Amino acid sequence: MKLKFFRPDWTEEAPAPGTFRSIAKYGDPHHFKHPSDAWVKMMKQDFHMSDADFLHKQNEGLAPVVLNRPSALKSSQIDALKSIVGPENIATDDYARVKYSSAKTSEEIIELRQGIIREVADVVVHPRDKNDVRKIVEYCDAELIPVTVFSGGSSCNFGCRPFKGGISLVLSTHMNKLLEVNELNQTARVQPGMFGPAYEKALNQSPEIFHTRLRYTCGHFPQSFEYSTVGGWILTLGSGQASTYYGDACDIVFSQEYVTPAGTFKTLDYPATATGPKVNEIMKGSEGVFGILVEVTMKIFRYMPENRQRFSFMYPTWEAAVDASREIMQSEFGKPAIFRISDPEETDRGLKLYGMPGIVDAFLAFRGFKPMQRCLGMGNVEGDKDFTRLVARKIKRIAAKYGAISLTGYAARKWEHTRYTEPYMREDLNDYGILIDTLEAGVTWDNLHRLHAGVRAYIKGRPDTMCLTHASHFYPQGTNLYFIFVARMNVDEYVTFQNGIIDRIQKFGGSLSHHHGVGRLLAPWMEEHLGREQMAVLRAVKRHFDPHNIMNPGGQLGLDEIPPRR
Amino acid sequence: MKLKFFRPDWTEEAPAPGTFRSIAKYGDPHHFKHPSDAWVKMMKQDFHMSDADFLHKQNEGLAPVVLNRPSALKSSQIDALKSIVGPENIATDDYARVKYSSAKTSEEIIELRQGIIREVADVVVHPRDKNDVRKIVEYCDAELIPVTVFSGGSSCNFGCRPFKGGISLVLSTHMNKLLEVNELNQTARVQPGMFGPAYEKALNQSPEIFHTRLRYTCGHFPQSFEYSTVGGWILTLGSGQASTYYGDACDIVFSQEYVTPAGTFKTLDYPATATGPKVNEIMKGSEGVFGILVEVTMKIFRYMPENRQRFSFMYPTWEAAVDASREIMQSEFGKPAIFRISDPEETDRGLKLYGMPGIVDAFLAFRGFKPMQRCLGMGNVEGDKDFTRLVARKIKRIAAKYGAISLTGYAARKWEHTRYTEPYMREDLNDYGILIDTLEAGVTWDNLHRLHAGVRAYIKGRPDTMCLTHASHFYPQGTNLYFIFVARMNVDEYVTFQNGIIDRIQKFGGSLSHHHGVGRLLAPWMEEHLGREQMAVLRAVKRHFDPHNIMNPGGQLGLDEIPPRR
Repeated sequence: MKLKFFRPDWTEEAPAPGTFRSIAKYGDPHHFKHPSDAWVKMMKQDFHMSDADFLHKQNEGLAPVVLNRPSALKSSQIDALKSIVGPENIATDDYARVKYSSAKTSEEIIELRQGIIREVADVVVHPRDKNDVRKIVEYCDAELIPVTVFSGGSSCNFGCRPFKGGISLVLSTHMNKLLEVNELNQTARVQPGMFGPAYEKALNQSPEIFHTRLRYTCGHFPQSFEYSTVGGWILTLGSGQASTYYGDACDIVFSQEYVTPAGTFKTLDYPATATGPKVNEIMKGSEGVFGILVEVTMKIFRYMPENRQRFSFMYPTWEAAVDASREIMQSEFGKPAIFRISDPEETDRGLKLYGMPGIVDAFLAFRGFKPMQRCLGMGNVEGDKDFTRLVARKIKRIAAKYGAISLTGYAARKWEHTRYTEPYMREDLNDYGILIDTLEAGVTWDNLHRLHAGVRAYIKGRPDTMCLTHASHFYPQGTNLYFIFVARMNVDEYVTFQNGIIDRIQKFGGSLSHHHGVGRLLAPWMEEHLGREQMAVLRAVKRHFDPHNIMNPGGQLGLDEIPPRR
Repeated sequence: MKLKFFRPDWTEEAPAPGTFRSIAKYGDPHHFKHPSDAWVKMMKQDFHMSDADFLHKQNEGLAPVVLNRPSALKSSQIDALKSIVGPENIATDDYARVKYSSAKTSEEIIELRQGIIREVADVVVHPRDKNDVRKIVEYCDAELIPVTVFSGGSSCNFGCRPFKGGISLVLSTHMNKLLEVNELNQTARVQPGMFGPAYEKALNQSPEIFHTRLRYTCGHFPQSFEYSTVGGWILTLGSGQASTYYGDACDIVFSQEYVTPAGTFKTLDYPATATGPKVNEIMKGSEGVFGILVEVTMKIFRYMPENRQRFSFMYPTWEAAVDASREIMQSEFGKPAIFRISDPEETDRGLKLYGMPGIVDAFLAFRGFKPMQRCLGMGNVEGDKDFTRLVARKIKRIAAKYGAISLTGYAARKWEHTRYTEPYMREDLNDYGILIDTLEAGVTWDNLHRLHAGVRAYIKGRPDTMCLTHASHFYPQGTNLYFIFVARMNVDEYVTFQNGIIDRIQKFGGSLSHHHGVGRLLAPWMEEHLGREQMAVLRAVKRHFDPHNIMNPGGQLGLDEIPPRR
């Protein structure tokens, strides 16, 4: 006899220390987010799975990590590094070498669960401060030892993998402090290895810690917020969920200090300056190939959560949702902070997954909001109280003009509760051979529908594959498209499929990445994307900073070589 | 017998064609803006001048331009250039060679009036389109002929002077068209040599010209608006008077197309992208040393002048004006478009010059707004109607909180009428040996008073010298200081004095330039300002783009050499 609602035996225990799973698992080892019953039902239906398919977990990665590869560094080199940072800040054991060579790329996760280890660091180094970093870079440049930075470790494109071995330089161990809040300038001087929550908490508590008059917020809240660091946000050109108001990571940077093989420097501390091309800009997005960000001054913002206004809507169609969003972004009454629109598939699956009373569904259908046509939109407004009221009112008016009905702030509130937890679900899906991953692209308004249709057609062309798409970062000139795909497949099928999606993003005119960065994953497409001339510019800057190619070598950004894919 | 109000015999005729004066004069040859009687009175008093000092004009530059220097280019080279652009687009006559080698630096103007000619181009070339530019750059790179771009010719730092001779490439003759308005994306594709008024007019008339639904504005209105071009705005990192809302020139650029010795390329057309360091950023502010901007896509904005809200205030002190401005910029209710505060000397001289009824002055003094303490503030708000009302209301409230009284929108309206005409007054002052010039710097809030006091003390340390200072471009993190100095002096005294001011801007922590660019004028300070490491980065990029150093060589930005000062 079968239970009416079969529920898989989701893992509820933190991975055992030392295991592959402990490296592969996202976030807090003790936190889990299991697929809802509705999710299970949907997967069974869409992927033609039965309860039997959820009885046995696959590739759980429960084995202890054993590397069995000697470090390529000489013991004299290890000793030299020890003398710089102290022996307690050096690790050469198998587990540390694998852990600090791995991030959260789907392919990495799946392989780790299978006990497969690709390129790893020879030694893990935890610098105590920027002087340590300077000495390490000088030493490694002289000895030709590759240096790859590990900070939050949330990269989804092999950004932390030391393709040429050498050092994994872990910035989040010690270099993780908020050093100063300058209230006059509304800036914060912070170390690159500080994680999002600690940074935001310290800013919120600025009056108690730094004796400021007001409380502040960092304005940058990516989905990886809890497991990404300030430095990583800048080096990969990240975007937070509230970027439509606060700006992308690159907009929130005031000045930066770098250690490079060509020297140490701090960019100018001015709100604006007309003294030639800005080195401050050249460094952003450099993904560790020019040098190491050792300190950064960020713009900060007044923390006024009491003024937040939330909204959510149902639009009749994707076209209406896009048109309304464009008008909102171009109307010049101020911008919302969080702003998202989901395409029909994401909307309908979302409604099913997160539950909508039948009566609401009936009402929506009656009002003409049909499944696989209607689109959910939601967000909030932050800032001054009168400003947030004005902007929310204007947004509602424009949404209504495009035929949307207001669903109140409920959906936005509900979304906020899970805004950082979605990545946790990957463990459970992977346990039963289901892969979930994302690719995303920046796009102008005039190309949005072409890109959406083109990429979606490719993804849906694969049988039994979910494709959920939303736009979540808005500008007067366009937005981004974020494609989530879910399917039952093995890692080889996955890689082939992922390559195909990237090909389509390129073909249909999306940017290769809107906010995930390039890493090695997208490196093979870079030259076609940027063009030969612009790649040559980046390579020239690379040669200047790093003539011996020790900084994150082996294909990051596609500058020194094109890394092979499996 | 003397007239009660002696009025100097201001020049009222357009300079004769072919004369030095016709090159030195700013703007429209037929337009003049004479100092008011109040100005004359003030100059006489402050500079100890009598009517007699205004009887005889000095160095009027009425002589015809005679160069008497053979072109260093071979006739075969001239022929080759003719075959590219057509003989009608080549000039080698003395007048053209001097005209297209001169811009509006004070030192240039004074020397031209004296008939002194410094470095000039060997040939003037007017390319018809970007293909011409590409062929010219290829040819000049092969023949090692220097290329200096001339577009609007409003540079105030020797940006257009061909220090190494060669070609002056004039972009404003043919490459001055608005090619496309993309209404979906709110972008305009424009040629670099288009002047401000033509560009703005075409955008305002976009429905008639491009069949758009709405009218648009460029959002960039520098004082040089009428005689500067879109390309110049970007290449020198300019700021418009409404930059506080619309952003600086660098913020308004969407994508750019360049011709360089290392190839031709167009940067990516995305509202955001995370594909490594942005070449689009690297090119901004490159002042012609990397290559030639041949086409640019700019962000544009809805044109809604009917929603404009104006305001002006009198603050009791400079400190109050600064504190109120900072609070306005950091309060997150939206930003004004134009926003200016004048320091006490500029305020008092302004009140005298532009006239204030005695009763108003008495009222202000009675209310405690004392001369040489009180400060004028003014500006406007643009955008959506409800937005402009909200922002204006908020600004008034904050100004009042800091003790200001509202002077209604009158002062702002009056200022708008003269917003582009101030530079015309220089001719009249120069005619009687009085020099007027400006230097300006970006600065954070926490250093504003130090920079203001330090630079002002130096300027006022010179006897009989006016110093008018305002801040006119605002950011949450700071603003700019714009120093205007007026004195009777010769060009040698002027150069020494100017050098001293730049030294003080550097010493007291201002940026070397907020929006005038570097040119050769500020080049000698660049290495100390940016630091050796960052200058090395710019030089590396320069070497990549221009290995034979043909692009605007001879000290622009201080990259290839430090140009000698007189």
